[in-house]
Amino acid sequence: MYEGIVQELIDELGRLPGIGPKSAQRIAFHIVQTESFDVSRLAEILTDVRDKVRFCSICGNVSEADVCGICSDPRRSRNVICVVEEAKDVAAIERTREFRGLYHVLGGAISPIDGVGPDDLRIRELMQRLADGEVVEVIIATDPNLEGEATATYLSRLLTTLEIRVTRLASGLPVGGDLEYADEVTLGRAFEGRRLVER
Amino acid sequence: MYEGIVQELIDELGRLPGIGPKSAQRIAFHIVQTESFDVSRLAEILTDVRDKVRFCSICGNVSEADVCGICSDPRRSRNVICVVEEAKDVAAIERTREFRGLYHVLGGAISPIDGVGPDDLRIRELMQRLADGEVVEVIIATDPNLEGEATATYLSRLLTTLEIRVTRLASGLPVGGDLEYADEVTLGRAFEGRRLVER
Repeated sequence: MYEGIVQELIDELGRLPGIGPKSAQRIAFHIVQTESFDVSRLAEILTDVRDKVRFCSICGNVSEADVCGICSDPRRSRNVICVVEEAKDVAAIERTREFRGLYHVLGGAISPIDGVGPDDLRIRELMQRLADGEVVEVIIATDPNLEGEATATYLSRLLTTLEIRVTRLASGLPVGGDLEYADEVTLGRAFEGRRLVER
Repeated sequence: MYEGIVQELIDELGRLPGIGPKSAQRIAFHIVQTESFDVSRLAEILTDVRDKVRFCSICGNVSEADVCGICSDPRRSRNVICVVEEAKDVAAIERTREFRGLYHVLGGAISPIDGVGPDDLRIRELMQRLADGEVVEVIIATDPNLEGEATATYLSRLLTTLEIRVTRLASGLPVGGDLEYADEVTLGRAFEGRRLVER
């Protein structure tokens, strides 16, 4: 519809999640027409981000160093690990300021329909972290949907072999949604009211 | 909340229109985590787009050449000019395939509250295009909202001095909205049913 590079920009923006054709068009025109918008800065960050960002070798959170800021923070409790699906869930929980332990990012949830099984998640790495007996509680904070529940059930069964308290975030999270979209208060309450998994 | 470059990317994406903090975060993680997403390509286009894109010296539409593809197309009728607020409105009308004349992009609409008056729009350029008498009809296709209507009224009064048929897109467009969000059928109908401006 547009000539050359403008259409290319619209197409490329349209590949981003949650950006439909109209949004892509609106953003492209904003970029083209707004003098104050720093195009080169966004371009530079995009080029840098892939090179600089890696994943924490301990918890799997996004990090620019080998070990992320949370894992290397001496003020964080080393006795509790909160297991989440994605790195963005770490940020959501950090915003509540309810939790001062460490995290473990699984990298997804068990989903037979998408061909994701336990071996595709960072579960082996979790078990290795639990091996030395320092951790006394694992809080399972997977998404309150089908895949998240399946993953939670799988993990809690797996962890019965260890002498570790396994908890799950309290209900209060809207069911069927994504953890990252919960507001801080709801997510904070869910943390406070976490329950022991029956097994 | 995030470390270094990831937060910078989220901040920079959040400056784009229609992208809130959660969307920015979602897009940033998609960019970081999706191997198949071509970051360098988006970065390259962003760098190029500002240099390459200019505005058609005749109609004001976005173009990579001095004269845009529509103005330089010999199959387009030179007797009718459709006046729109923004370049994206040109694309919206082109999608209807109802119009085979030329365009004139005003670069906005009269809005006293935003300090935009007739002199801030490409109205003088429009009058120059109409001076040689080749154009027999001007279709005013400003947005069906307060500013668009004010602009249409201003233009139609200004054009009474010339021997030119002045029309306005038919109602059928949802009032209070943006022209660019109208679906093709509605916008096509509005074109067919355009009415002569009473003066």
